[in-house]
Amino acid sequence: MNDTQKSIMERFSCRGFSSNPVSDEKVKAIVDAALAAPSAMNQMPWFISVITDKSFIDELDAEGMSILAEGEDKSSYNRMMERGGKLFYNAPLMIVIAGNDSGASPLDCGILTQNIALSAHALNLGNVICGMAGVPLTGRRAAEFKKRMSIPDEYNYTMSVLIGEAVVTKEPHELDYSKVSYVK
Amino acid sequence: MNDTQKSIMERFSCRGFSSNPVSDEKVKAIVDAALAAPSAMNQMPWFISVITDKSFIDELDAEGMSILAEGEDKSSYNRMMERGGKLFYNAPLMIVIAGNDSGASPLDCGILTQNIALSAHALNLGNVICGMAGVPLTGRRAAEFKKRMSIPDEYNYTMSVLIGEAVVTKEPHELDYSKVSYVK
Repeated sequence: MNDTQKSIMERFSCRGFSSNPVSDEKVKAIVDAALAAPSAMNQMPWFISVITDKSFIDELDAEGMSILAEGEDKSSYNRMMERGGKLFYNAPLMIVIAGNDSGASPLDCGILTQNIALSAHALNLGNVICGMAGVPLTGRRAAEFKKRMSIPDEYNYTMSVLIGEAVVTKEPHELDYSKVSYVK
Repeated sequence: MNDTQKSIMERFSCRGFSSNPVSDEKVKAIVDAALAAPSAMNQMPWFISVITDKSFIDELDAEGMSILAEGEDKSSYNRMMERGGKLFYNAPLMIVIAGNDSGASPLDCGILTQNIALSAHALNLGNVICGMAGVPLTGRRAAEFKKRMSIPDEYNYTMSVLIGEAVVTKEPHELDYSKVSYVK
């Protein structure tokens, strides 16, 4: 099995990070991987914000947990409390992916998201694709956070990836072959 | 640069294939890569159809070109004619990705799509993410084709990837650093 295939097959959703920062060199490699993503008609319907300011990640985390705590449905809040009370698992690096309103944007942002995840994995960094960033980033302080991330007006929060040194391990997902047909 | 990063950075959109079939072993690796994709809450909002029956790919191609030829806007038809008159560039392998109607499906299908593209590239196969498959697969014979691909009712055409031995080369996309902000 080649190394790319190994990265694809062995990468797992990491939900526990040390607070060691990710080196500038690794951040650059991951950003390059993101920007190398193909997109429909090369329109690049995305913008990414690379957050290494841990105090900002912690502020987003606290705001997100506060929103969850106040919600009527406490299931997400309780799940996060069981997992340690940190929405972003103490990750030292968060990359926020914002898409525009073109029809191709969600799929193209998915392509870019996976480049980030695989690049991070190949650099021996744990990572998880984290939709929970949407709690603070589409919440009551969304406009303020968007401004602080310098995300242009026409792009809006789509997804995030949390990255850092893994302090937990987990098996990759099992393959579900019922999801495939063949025309031979 | 590690091999995974190299695959991400060097993969290009291939628009010319030999008719040599892709080996069963390589098809299996690519299918495994697709199914290893992470998804929101591991819901796997996708189904894939793996087409190695070249006569079926050619039938989809002919139907797509016929639809384009009859359309009022001839720009796509003329572009494809300039590129050799084959909508699918003679590729011997097409993987059709179908999503369900969940909100997470397009992004998750994008993650899966990129796993296919990177796995194929790492196996020295040219590949292109091809939205033009939507011309025949959402056209007047959509229901018939869906049935022949054994795609379950709740999934619908989202994207395709064409794969085969590359007979052309192309530079990867340039990186656009204006698409990134930093919060340090």
